[in-house]
Amino acid sequence: MAVIKVGFLQTKPVFGDLCGNLDRVIKRLGRSDTAGLELLVLPELFSTGYQFTSKKELRTLAEDLKSGYSVQRLSALAKERNLHIVAGLAERCGKKLYNSPVLIGPKGLISVYRKAHLFWNEKSIFNPGDIPLEVVNIGKARIGMMICYDWIYPEVARALALKGVDILCHPSNLVLPNCPQAMITRCLENRVFAITANRVGTEDRGAGDALTFIGKSQIVTPRGEVLLRAASRRTAFAMANINVADARDKKITPKNHIFRDMRQDIF
Amino acid sequence: MAVIKVGFLQTKPVFGDLCGNLDRVIKRLGRSDTAGLELLVLPELFSTGYQFTSKKELRTLAEDLKSGYSVQRLSALAKERNLHIVAGLAERCGKKLYNSPVLIGPKGLISVYRKAHLFWNEKSIFNPGDIPLEVVNIGKARIGMMICYDWIYPEVARALALKGVDILCHPSNLVLPNCPQAMITRCLENRVFAITANRVGTEDRGAGDALTFIGKSQIVTPRGEVLLRAASRRTAFAMANINVADARDKKITPKNHIFRDMRQDIF
Repeated sequence: MAVIKVGFLQTKPVFGDLCGNLDRVIKRLGRSDTAGLELLVLPELFSTGYQFTSKKELRTLAEDLKSGYSVQRLSALAKERNLHIVAGLAERCGKKLYNSPVLIGPKGLISVYRKAHLFWNEKSIFNPGDIPLEVVNIGKARIGMMICYDWIYPEVARALALKGVDILCHPSNLVLPNCPQAMITRCLENRVFAITANRVGTEDRGAGDALTFIGKSQIVTPRGEVLLRAASRRTAFAMANINVADARDKKITPKNHIFRDMRQDIF
Repeated sequence: MAVIKVGFLQTKPVFGDLCGNLDRVIKRLGRSDTAGLELLVLPELFSTGYQFTSKKELRTLAEDLKSGYSVQRLSALAKERNLHIVAGLAERCGKKLYNSPVLIGPKGLISVYRKAHLFWNEKSIFNPGDIPLEVVNIGKARIGMMICYDWIYPEVARALALKGVDILCHPSNLVLPNCPQAMITRCLENRVFAITANRVGTEDRGAGDALTFIGKSQIVTPRGEVLLRAASRRTAFAMANINVADARDKKITPKNHIFRDMRQDIF
């Protein structure tokens, strides 16, 4: 079974500065040791920043996925480096506005998921997602996208696991402290890998409370080991080799298969 | 809404010594400050010990719940102290043998659940449970029983939460390290309390590997706070006041209700 080199970039976006935020991602990768990197996860809304003060403001910064600035630059990056990238974008689709992680490969946009479980004030500016959870085979591994607050619903990771996911790709803008530990539970209960890419920094755009993001981006194994975890306040790039076979083995003990043992009849 | 005083007893059973194990529970409570205690959780198989070497041995020690020794003594204890007790027993029912947590009140046996997700060698000696998960109103709170390895299935706590549980009562004989942290996730994702009562000590009955139990019994709040956690190697009694209202409030933020927001349509 394949070994795949995966990584995350923990960023500190400048609100509204699409060009600068993309430049900083590419610059950071350029000065990091990225040799062999095959799958990279970026945070939620990494190119725009998080705290939109109105739908109107969001509409100005959101992009059509066919022609959008971030998709174009990430596609160029993915092509140049022969890489798959999962990244969170502000998506505009006709009159609708979504908080959308996308999967981009060397040939461009492959897949999109739209945040269905909107958190707090996101409910006032984004439309709720309308796309079922999906697992995509990128060659060496089957990946699935979930985003930020989806962590609190075990049904999300479970649905992806039952569809055969090996690696949960989890762009985030976390402000609450609980997710990094909870993602360990998600990995254990499904025997899958998870890459959470979070951001750092504080945004205070005058529309409410200042938000401080907790960092702690991480890669967790199907056995609940934290392979890598970034710090809380600094940007970071990190990568690791993971063996996809570990996510295909659903045995907790020689006699316990996590899915075959499940007793739906008692729930 | 009611405040209820709940506790756990972390024990170190002597294998096969039903009388002694009950004596030790009662003695320990007698010399602890238990004033006001209303709900007590004991470990899985607390009266028999864990590592049965054969069905035959299990049959000898297992008890009929109507007339069994442990049920009788726990019923007397519950009556004397005006207490509800959740405890894990080896149950014999006709030809079947179950790993069963029971709920006992001042008037005797109230409810039983039979372990459905059997762990490792339990599969060779116990019958799998055949009773749906149930929530019982004990006056001040609605409690639900799950047992040990059930922790790994988010569906168990979720099913109980959707049935209105306030407090997950979770007798355990944990040997793997992950459960205490995972139960925090179970509380967060359902906004419920959880009381895990685990045991300590090592059993080596010559039938396989020695098993060392990890202790760390705990009480966790709907916000994922660990109110109390016992040590790994010592017996312990601990109790805390909890406000049941905290488990009835399913709001994560003013705009996020954990159940109403759930997007079944995308799973």
